[in-house]
Amino acid sequence: MIETPSLVDQYCHGVLRTELGLGTFEAQLARTEGPPAPGTTLFDTQTGFAVRRWCPPLLGLEPHCPPARYLARRRELGVMEADRRLLRGSGITTYLVDAGLPGDLTGPEELASAAAADAHEIVRLELLAEQVADTSGTVESFLANLAEAVHGAAAHAVAFTSVAGVRHGLALAPEPPGPGEVRGAAARWLTGREVGGELSDPVLLRHLLWIAVASGRPLQLHAGLGEPGLRIDRTDPVLLTDFVRATAGLGTDLVLLHGYPYHRHAAHLAGVFPHVYADSGAALVRTGARAATVLAEILELAPFGKILFSSGAQGLPELHVVAARLFREALGRVLGTWVAEGAWSLGDAQRVAGMIAAGNAGRVYGLEEQVPARPAGNVSQLRPG
Amino acid sequence: MIETPSLVDQYCHGVLRTELGLGTFEAQLARTEGPPAPGTTLFDTQTGFAVRRWCPPLLGLEPHCPPARYLARRRELGVMEADRRLLRGSGITTYLVDAGLPGDLTGPEELASAAAADAHEIVRLELLAEQVADTSGTVESFLANLAEAVHGAAAHAVAFTSVAGVRHGLALAPEPPGPGEVRGAAARWLTGREVGGELSDPVLLRHLLWIAVASGRPLQLHAGLGEPGLRIDRTDPVLLTDFVRATAGLGTDLVLLHGYPYHRHAAHLAGVFPHVYADSGAALVRTGARAATVLAEILELAPFGKILFSSGAQGLPELHVVAARLFREALGRVLGTWVAEGAWSLGDAQRVAGMIAAGNAGRVYGLEEQVPARPAGNVSQLRPG
Amino acid sequence: MIETPSLVDQYCHGVLRTELGLGTFEAQLARTEGPPAPGTTLFDTQTGFAVRRWCPPLLGLEPHCPPARYLARRRELGVMEADRRLLRGSGITTYLVDAGLPGDLTGPEELASAAAADAHEIVRLELLAEQVADTSGTVESFLANLAEAVHGAAAHAVAFTSVAGVRHGLALAPEPPGPGEVRGAAARWLTGREVGGELSDPVLLRHLLWIAVASGRPLQLHAGLGEPGLRIDRTDPVLLTDFVRATAGLGTDLVLLHGYPYHRHAAHLAGVFPHVYADSGAALVRTGARAATVLAEILELAPFGKILFSSGAQGLPELHVVAARLFREALGRVLGTWVAEGAWSLGDAQRVAGMIAAGNAGRVYGLEEQVPARPAGNVSQLRPG
Repeated sequence: MIETPSLVDQYCHGVLRTELGLGTFEAQLARTEGPPAPGTTLFDTQTGFAVRRWCPPLLGLEPHCPPARYLARRRELGVMEADRRLLRGSGITTYLVDAGLPGDLTGPEELASAAAADAHEIVRLELLAEQVADTSGTVESFLANLAEAVHGAAAHAVAFTSVAGVRHGLALAPEPPGPGEVRGAAARWLTGREVGGELSDPVLLRHLLWIAVASGRPLQLHAGLGEPGLRIDRTDPVLLTDFVRATAGLGTDLVLLHGYPYHRHAAHLAGVFPHVYADSGAALVRTGARAATVLAEILELAPFGKILFSSGAQGLPELHVVAARLFREALGRVLGTWVAEGAWSLGDAQRVAGMIAAGNAGRVYGLEEQVPARPAGNVSQLRPG
Repeated sequence: MIETPSLVDQYCHGVLRTELGLGTFEAQLARTEGPPAPGTTLFDTQTGFAVRRWCPPLLGLEPHCPPARYLARRRELGVMEADRRLLRGSGITTYLVDAGLPGDLTGPEELASAAAADAHEIVRLELLAEQVADTSGTVESFLANLAEAVHGAAAHAVAFTSVAGVRHGLALAPEPPGPGEVRGAAARWLTGREVGGELSDPVLLRHLLWIAVASGRPLQLHAGLGEPGLRIDRTDPVLLTDFVRATAGLGTDLVLLHGYPYHRHAAHLAGVFPHVYADSGAALVRTGARAATVLAEILELAPFGKILFSSGAQGLPELHVVAARLFREALGRVLGTWVAEGAWSLGDAQRVAGMIAAGNAGRVYGLEEQVPARPAGNVSQLRPG
Repeated sequence: MIETPSLVDQYCHGVLRTELGLGTFEAQLARTEGPPAPGTTLFDTQTGFAVRRWCPPLLGLEPHCPPARYLARRRELGVMEADRRLLRGSGITTYLVDAGLPGDLTGPEELASAAAADAHEIVRLELLAEQVADTSGTVESFLANLAEAVHGAAAHAVAFTSVAGVRHGLALAPEPPGPGEVRGAAARWLTGREVGGELSDPVLLRHLLWIAVASGRPLQLHAGLGEPGLRIDRTDPVLLTDFVRATAGLGTDLVLLHGYPYHRHAAHLAGVFPHVYADSGAALVRTGARAATVLAEILELAPFGKILFSSGAQGLPELHVVAARLFREALGRVLGTWVAEGAWSLGDAQRVAGMIAAGNAGRVYGLEEQVPARPAGNVSQLRPG
């Protein structure tokens, strides 16, 4: 009844290029601190059950078939063919890809080709800074190169993403750090750092956020579920409130990724601040059969024009599939129920479904194919900088 | 099946006296920091959809008709007639009205007349203090006049309300401030203040709370959703726990307004402390099609004799309508489902529905028409002071 | 459709041995700060309604009969017979009993006999420390006796439980306190203490946790709903994150009891850390008709091999009954719905139901009858110590 022909995955990663055994596949189903407890398996999770529901049919098997059988079939097809079938079966028409993860993952172009879909790049700020640090000799050159790198990335990427919440927590001072403060923090970081060293200094994380804000590109902020061992309350998006207020009116949109279990807080911020958007997808992969409820909780306070879909998938194309299928089914069920109850009209429900699945992302990220009313051409000119 | 013939709105405001255009009407649908984002409208929210569902039929239109058509019909009728039809169609039989908001809003008498219902006044403590400050020359006269004003208000108002949580956050020291502390804070505030200046000093906010508690009138405390740009965790009612414990046994009831998204916390406090009550209505206006779930979450821990209804409506009579309709439908659906499942008996469900809709409010606020078993007459004598 | 023939209550207390009047029975239905508000009764709560639904039929009455009639029937049967009928009607096959509460409550053996079920003892760490303090003359003897008492308890108890969260809050320093710190804290506590005095010193609470962890027995930590007047956010299990990380890999399992309203946080920790388990039962007694939703919220992030059932019941056998019936009905409804929707297979649902009802507890606590694959005999050898 409620159709979403286009589906923009506004935040995901690539998939692993290597063949996977049962154990290596299982390890990709969740982010944990250590192997499963004795007597338990990560297949016995909402994500595991959702993979077993949605993916076997795409490879010619029965839904809910045993993991070993599924993995055998996957190996039989080969990783390339399995990826192709899965990604093409997800229903995702556009992927926005954060390529800033370690591991042998496909990049945006490769993902687009396997999926027969569009793909665009999201630049991860912390990785960019680490790469610049690897090749800059002095504090001055580091800061100059960093500004240039962000500016350059803004010209080709559809968005920036920040894992400041994961690295330090979201309780960051809201205002931009002063130039002296930034130079001091950069000096300390560069001095103590080995090549490849991670950026977690709060002053530099804030500096990155603010130069990204200045670029005008949408800025995605990780919130809620992130690093498994981190105290999850340190990523409550409510902690971003003052930063959000400080960036209001500057012409740059902020997108709160994940959110769960604080997704009602993210939805609240999306309702209050014109430049804030809430993600509705990544949490669904984790909550599986509960996806409709989690989605409905986001739909409480977030205006319907401020909600975006993402898979947050990484490593396994199964996770892209599961996110997309759970999202579509949940959206259909939630909105369909409201139509059946008389709370919403069918026309409104169909319109809102299209907005959340693709229309809002098309507008926020300037994806021309999603916004046919806009002239084709130089997309970056369509957005204030 | 589950009827609630009486409905007491235990916290609301008046309605705007002026004709509204599409934009001014839309702006009343939500409390935001700035205008809607480009490409979005506040009609595309749960509140907007609920208004379009429930209100057009009261003005002779189809449910879910487009906003422009609804506004045209509203103007055709004129604001007076539209208000009259909407308020009378809400089903609310008694309004408790906080008249302490700026703007050209109807007062309790005018609201009662338009709605053909009862209305009583709630006095907003901070506004009272600001008014006293406007007309007091010295610290001593301010404090004496303030005590007298609260005492005087207690004689005619059904309740006090405090926005201390909105002005400062609910993490206030729980004990009453000492006299010297109060004088010092009053001196600082009055010195720096211009006529009309807002009260946000935490010592004076606490002083107000405690002189209100001493009056014996129920004290309503804003919690959860409040000022849009404020950090919402600063209004978590859990922060009131120590104040609640400090006021236990004094004979004054505390009513936690709104609560959402911390309504489970408010329900917990209502379950633990005999003098604490939880509001179940205002959150429904914001969450629309999700009202039944939000109401059910309050019904988890809050004893059924400790839950009250309110609309929290301001400006638009549509918001009173939506609150009342959503509440009645949600209550009927939630309790009706539990009866159908065998979890509750029908008799219990009907009794509880009447308590939450009107009976509890009648008892807490001494509204004689709600508590026919009590002798008519001087209502204030019925409550300990 | 979904059966759970065995049911392990992994955390409960005994029942009162005395006959109860209406008022004393009512007082056991909830934990509050003071008597019910005028005009209200604790029977008008989810727990009260659930008792009236499930218990009268076990005593030969109609469901939902009035409290006075139920109490009259209970007295007619006598407390021994009523206990017997109720406990045997609960469907619980094994009780793990924390006998460390004041009051005239039955111990594990007596409970097992009345219920015709198995029972095992859980040792409450703080009570153990208080008992040791009552009989130790010096700091040195106290600490030596305490170590010996914990070691001795580990030989016969199935688990330890800690109410550190209730006594102090869960924001405890994560590492073990140093020996000098422990001696200083013990000296201060023992000096100021009268016989029977409660332990709430955070250094000694941490010391207790760590000697319990060293024993290898599962350690149950109270979180969420606990002492009624306590600030509930101080028992948010997220506050345990650093302690959980500090105890990872030591071979001792941690079980987060209760959790509600922070049960999603508890489920998150159970998902991330191999040695963490989440309780799914006690919250159901408090939320009654909402049990299915609360259980479903736990099932979002917690792996299915990491969820345990408990009643948390104390004083009234009605609470054991209600916990067990609500749990079984909720589990059947939630998993049954997912099967009906195609999200889960029936076989998986049945398997997961058995795990949550009994299998997981059998594995975690080494209850041989729950784990038939293991050789009978010395259960404690089956677990690392």
